[in-house]
Amino acid sequence: MKKQRFIIIGGVAAGMSAASRARRLRPDIEILVFQRSEYVSYIACGMPYLISGKVKSIDSLVVYDARFFQEKRNINVFSHHDVLRIFPQRKTILVRNNQTAEEKEHSYDKLLIATGARPGVPGIKGKELKGIFTIRLLEDGRTIKEYIKNNSPRMGLVLGAGSIGMEMTEAFTESGIKVTVVDSMPNILGTMDDEITEIIEQELKENDVTLIKSKTVKEFTGEDTIVKKAILDSGEPIDTGIVLIGAGIKPNSEIAADAGIELGSTGAIRVNEKMETSIPDIYAAGDCAEAYHLVYGRNVYLPLGTTSNKQGRIAGENMAGGDASFPGIVGTSIFKVFNLEVGRTGISEKDAISWGIGYVSGIIDHSSRSHYYPGATPVRVKLVAEKETGRLLGAQVAGKDLAAKRIDVFATAISAGMTVRQLRELDLGYAPPFAPAYDPVLIAANELQKKL
Amino acid sequence: MKKQRFIIIGGVAAGMSAASRARRLRPDIEILVFQRSEYVSYIACGMPYLISGKVKSIDSLVVYDARFFQEKRNINVFSHHDVLRIFPQRKTILVRNNQTAEEKEHSYDKLLIATGARPGVPGIKGKELKGIFTIRLLEDGRTIKEYIKNNSPRMGLVLGAGSIGMEMTEAFTESGIKVTVVDSMPNILGTMDDEITEIIEQELKENDVTLIKSKTVKEFTGEDTIVKKAILDSGEPIDTGIVLIGAGIKPNSEIAADAGIELGSTGAIRVNEKMETSIPDIYAAGDCAEAYHLVYGRNVYLPLGTTSNKQGRIAGENMAGGDASFPGIVGTSIFKVFNLEVGRTGISEKDAISWGIGYVSGIIDHSSRSHYYPGATPVRVKLVAEKETGRLLGAQVAGKDLAAKRIDVFATAISAGMTVRQLRELDLGYAPPFAPAYDPVLIAANELQKKL
Repeated sequence: MKKQRFIIIGGVAAGMSAASRARRLRPDIEILVFQRSEYVSYIACGMPYLISGKVKSIDSLVVYDARFFQEKRNINVFSHHDVLRIFPQRKTILVRNNQTAEEKEHSYDKLLIATGARPGVPGIKGKELKGIFTIRLLEDGRTIKEYIKNNSPRMGLVLGAGSIGMEMTEAFTESGIKVTVVDSMPNILGTMDDEITEIIEQELKENDVTLIKSKTVKEFTGEDTIVKKAILDSGEPIDTGIVLIGAGIKPNSEIAADAGIELGSTGAIRVNEKMETSIPDIYAAGDCAEAYHLVYGRNVYLPLGTTSNKQGRIAGENMAGGDASFPGIVGTSIFKVFNLEVGRTGISEKDAISWGIGYVSGIIDHSSRSHYYPGATPVRVKLVAEKETGRLLGAQVAGKDLAAKRIDVFATAISAGMTVRQLRELDLGYAPPFAPAYDPVLIAANELQKKL
Repeated sequence: MKKQRFIIIGGVAAGMSAASRARRLRPDIEILVFQRSEYVSYIACGMPYLISGKVKSIDSLVVYDARFFQEKRNINVFSHHDVLRIFPQRKTILVRNNQTAEEKEHSYDKLLIATGARPGVPGIKGKELKGIFTIRLLEDGRTIKEYIKNNSPRMGLVLGAGSIGMEMTEAFTESGIKVTVVDSMPNILGTMDDEITEIIEQELKENDVTLIKSKTVKEFTGEDTIVKKAILDSGEPIDTGIVLIGAGIKPNSEIAADAGIELGSTGAIRVNEKMETSIPDIYAAGDCAEAYHLVYGRNVYLPLGTTSNKQGRIAGENMAGGDASFPGIVGTSIFKVFNLEVGRTGISEKDAISWGIGYVSGIIDHSSRSHYYPGATPVRVKLVAEKETGRLLGAQVAGKDLAAKRIDVFATAISAGMTVRQLRELDLGYAPPFAPAYDPVLIAANELQKKL
């Protein structure tokens, strides 16, 4: 009998998680991974810290290299390969080797699409000038770091005040660059609520970052093909020697759509809890796919590395004949900008309003540790709960000490369907170096319960 | 109509939480609090940090003073008062003013017993020598600090390697004292499992602390009434200029028992979820009372400040005519010793064995932050789950970075009755400065799931 063959398109978080899981369950099958980048299994989230110098070597951002997968796990990794088309009828894919330009068709028994996402780049005049970057592939981090080293820009511009924009603002500042952040919206950080974003804005100010809201860049101008200025829609010019475009990311779902695979309304590949697409034997996982959101009760597009890892594992298990399900996400994300820690999970008040959900919300500031313990600073917590049931729907946190990971308790509570009343009675850890007797988590729940 | 009167015996965590809650709901009643100590509403857990000098002033360990309660909340606080007896038939208590020796009977409509606990002191010869301390009242912290200042002991002995013993070992060491810890058991930290306690033992060693297990002190000897040596049961003498006895605490439940109030098998006052005792209109809360343990499904005695605060609030609400319930605890506790953070929740493997619970357990070491991010160190996580159902029963953590509060996710999961399978799919916060892509919490769940 001919060996079964699994093909995986994309060798980063979802792809390599799936490959490894499938291999563990099925030592007998052939596994092929095609990857556009030179690197596989790398940690894109680490790039800001590579650029700032906190992380010394690009190698530390590669979990395992292609050789490891080849030699230790018998997974055939083809770097520098682009998959051009999927032919579901004859169960093949067309692949180009970007180093030789050779094209070849490969047949599969099971296929996983883990093509990831790419940065959205607004159609701004002059965006092809040198010194203007997006950040996605590990190569991007290396290129930006080298550009800073070779050009020593004194001024920089970050377009888009999302979490990657914030991390890159910190990385640029720590590289000696004076940063201006431009965001087209009146509020930064997407749907986070104002009581949280005002703390972030304060942190930017304290670190000498200029924030320009409700404006866009209409043109970049340069000298000798190198960017020198960004011109705002208001006409105002901003001197800049480097630009990072952090205007969101788009799923690499075109190859799936071309093959007749159904996309969701988000533009990402629709998957069920088994990570199956609309075509048999084709799975999708990671940043090219949707994920089921437990609070909204529908599929959303919230691409994050942790979800990719989990979806990849589920896909790999099911491709190998297993029966695993991905229960869904609650939209947890955290980031650091300078000395501030920020986190969110579930939905914000703005989300509740947009979706017409009947809610109550509350906000508290409470000490990160016992107030008398060195290092204690306020953590702000905002909670949103369903008015009718008292069920926790969302939480946001911000603070300079032990703030970000407090979001995990809320994420767990939301997953478990807990009410605010149940939340406030939780038996959380207390010791003066780590928390006050009433943890900010419990104080927030206590205050919100008064409105229910 | 005569004003209703609530009397509260004990003015620390449970007592003052109850008084404040009752006052908020019932502006009309009279509230009397009798307190043995000079201080009310103080934070006993902060004393090790007062002694080490991390906390500069004893005042910062007092949340609110008696005057605050009197003036701002109209709660009559009587410091230096001992309650001698409760007479449930005529609904009165007998109180002695310790400053005037005057005794007086006061009538109550509702009574709360929040008498707390006291350190257990083994009957060791010479225990009345100067320089031998227990730590419970705020005055104890002040006295120990003064003793160290005036006597500059070079060697110290901590009797009992529980969490208070560990915190005091750190406090003594930071005061320039070379510490020996003596514990009568072969394992330190009670029922914590060996894979965790071996890390704690290593931390003690690295900080030049001598640990002697499976031995007891049979005698203290001194010169001029000041302690100089502890003699072990093996006959070995240990030089010591100061001794801290941290041999557990006992509930101050005698006054309740004398009044005919039912105690639990633990010796603490039995309460239901309303904080009611066996006698109508008498409530109990805090370190003198039991608490319902959600994993064991029965009452236990695990006195902790956080539980006291919560039970006090519930008692106060119900005394004021409310209908609040305390759902119970899961036995969460955390502490710091030198650079190590330790936490536990639910039951340990040793507990599971003692109670004959069918279990599986697993242990992992995984990075506290992304492995390439500065400061990342391993966190050890041990999990225990019910074999038949896969339900999480307990967790223990230890590590030098971002370890202790990770226990909160497990505490929340246990409260929610989550299985290990549900735990491993949780959508927890990820960013390189705070967590690896797979949080140690999820890695631990993943590994344990393989055994289920």
